[in-house]
Amino acid sequence: MDDEKTTVRFGVLGCAHISIKLCKAILRAPNATLQAIGSRSLEKATAFAAENGLPEAVRVYGNYEGVLDDDHVDAVYIPLPTALHVTWAVRAAERGKHILLEKPVAMNTAELDRILEACEGNGVQFMDGTMWVHHPRTAKMKEALSDEQRFGQLKWIHSCLTYNPGPEFLKHSIRAKPDLDGLGALGDTGWYCIRAILWAMNYELPKSVLAFPGAILNEQGVIISCGSALHWEDGRSATFHCSFLSYVTFDVTALGTKGCLRLHDFTLPFEENFGYGTFYEASEMDYGKIEAGRWCPKPNEHVVETEVPQEVLMVKKFAELVYNIKFCGEKPLKEWSVVSRKTQIVLDAVKESIQRNYQPVEIN
Amino acid sequence: MDDEKTTVRFGVLGCAHISIKLCKAILRAPNATLQAIGSRSLEKATAFAAENGLPEAVRVYGNYEGVLDDDHVDAVYIPLPTALHVTWAVRAAERGKHILLEKPVAMNTAELDRILEACEGNGVQFMDGTMWVHHPRTAKMKEALSDEQRFGQLKWIHSCLTYNPGPEFLKHSIRAKPDLDGLGALGDTGWYCIRAILWAMNYELPKSVLAFPGAILNEQGVIISCGSALHWEDGRSATFHCSFLSYVTFDVTALGTKGCLRLHDFTLPFEENFGYGTFYEASEMDYGKIEAGRWCPKPNEHVVETEVPQEVLMVKKFAELVYNIKFCGEKPLKEWSVVSRKTQIVLDAVKESIQRNYQPVEIN
Repeated sequence: MDDEKTTVRFGVLGCAHISIKLCKAILRAPNATLQAIGSRSLEKATAFAAENGLPEAVRVYGNYEGVLDDDHVDAVYIPLPTALHVTWAVRAAERGKHILLEKPVAMNTAELDRILEACEGNGVQFMDGTMWVHHPRTAKMKEALSDEQRFGQLKWIHSCLTYNPGPEFLKHSIRAKPDLDGLGALGDTGWYCIRAILWAMNYELPKSVLAFPGAILNEQGVIISCGSALHWEDGRSATFHCSFLSYVTFDVTALGTKGCLRLHDFTLPFEENFGYGTFYEASEMDYGKIEAGRWCPKPNEHVVETEVPQEVLMVKKFAELVYNIKFCGEKPLKEWSVVSRKTQIVLDAVKESIQRNYQPVEIN
Repeated sequence: MDDEKTTVRFGVLGCAHISIKLCKAILRAPNATLQAIGSRSLEKATAFAAENGLPEAVRVYGNYEGVLDDDHVDAVYIPLPTALHVTWAVRAAERGKHILLEKPVAMNTAELDRILEACEGNGVQFMDGTMWVHHPRTAKMKEALSDEQRFGQLKWIHSCLTYNPGPEFLKHSIRAKPDLDGLGALGDTGWYCIRAILWAMNYELPKSVLAFPGAILNEQGVIISCGSALHWEDGRSATFHCSFLSYVTFDVTALGTKGCLRLHDFTLPFEENFGYGTFYEASEMDYGKIEAGRWCPKPNEHVVETEVPQEVLMVKKFAELVYNIKFCGEKPLKEWSVVSRKTQIVLDAVKESIQRNYQPVEIN
């Protein structure tokens, strides 16, 4: 079997911590091959390959250009700091490379549009690196949210995604520097919250976005803790909180007229390494019973099995799309650009609301 | 043993649904006696006594005045619609009756101040009917929140309290009528959310309150769904959501720098009838482990036993205070007035923020 014919060959731009996870996912996905990695120095790239036991066949470059110039690379995974995305994603698209772009995808929607235009102009597939949407649990949760009998109509969703990496991180990490991951906690964990909210709302954009007063910015103006309320014309609403200052939470709570759905590990299932993800769902509570001080049983636990971790599923899905373009004459699927762009639009609105001293920002 | 000497004799104003629960709690509390009930008609009061198997010794009045005029009544429980609280609580205080007042305690802080002045002027104890704070689980949760090693500093708290009683309720219930329980969902379930937030914040008032755009009011202007962000000068913040439109939730999530605490049944423990309440606490997560895609164990479950339901503990606590005033020459404890008043202040600010088209309201 000829690998060139049957798998999608990936190049990875940058040896970030997250690259380890993605390199392993690429190696594990049945329809992907790790072709090349590039770093700012050959030393760093070589050490990364050795430390992570990458196969010897993986080509190692001391710059990003080498990966983009490699004719054996079909697609690139770009985990560079957010501020560099527009430059390298546009270059990659111009070289005909399909793009799996780490989130947050860009510093703002205008930059993302330059990326998406380059992808469209060059016929390459775009997908962002939001992994949890590819876990089979996510599809099962969508079924639960769509269950008219048990869940009813969605009314409200709340997401909270925080971690506390400590003061050194806040001083030195690229995630807290304006010229690198300049969106801070909003771009890092807020991205997931916003995506979860939009996912639950069938990717309908809210009418307006209002950041909570009291957002916390570091000395360089990067958001390290914030939150926002979103609302839709039809009365649905949502809130989220993202922060680099609190203990780890990955929470989503969605409320419908007839039921609710909760999980506390949405971006990374607690027990994914054991092959499953869990969520909690409740319905059919008799209101009268509550008033009388008696409760129905606790929420139901739903366990969803997965053979491989969500990052492998993401790579597999992306590689399928690339394969279809490369070998079956299909066009890039726009869906993934659309959901990235909507996420970025809301993220921009939250940032704007903070900058405008917590005034609501309307989304057209 | 002379009951008159060793127990506090309660009168109940009104035969609301909640009165059943409180009558039973009064009968069950070791230091309380149910002396009298009053309703707008003697028929209704008599039927209530019969249906709920109240002892024959309980005096039945066809009006509220009868209860207040009864010299054998030491204290009254007032579960009347909110708009009637100021009238009846003031009258009760003027008759020297100690007051256990159902929440929300008043239509606004000005009304509450009239009640509290009457209580102070007449030397009677005041307590509101927020039951969950009396469950032993609450004290254990406070310990967990105060644990510097495991929880660290409190940064953020979110509470969500909703139920969906259906369209008939929204049309006909007193909880959705401006001249009765005119604070709607904000007074009913929002009260608990605000109290939980203040409880976690050691009853320090927030600097400002901002309601979320998109609050839903019924045709008569009563809030049936809303939420709010609160923030404190030192960077702590909180959000809550309360609604009559979504499935039942009683959620609190508190985040500290080192740990988090969650529960999904804070106002009414799932398994209180079996003698316990549960909460979940997590700490000591290694951030590095998360990045590498491996999780520490799930949150720890803490089970707190209780011999009697929280409403009995509330009655017992209130009766202890009244007993101390009546027989031991002690003065009324102000603490309970203070926490009620702070809750009402925040509640008023949320309402004002909605009325002022979602402008922030500063609290002095």
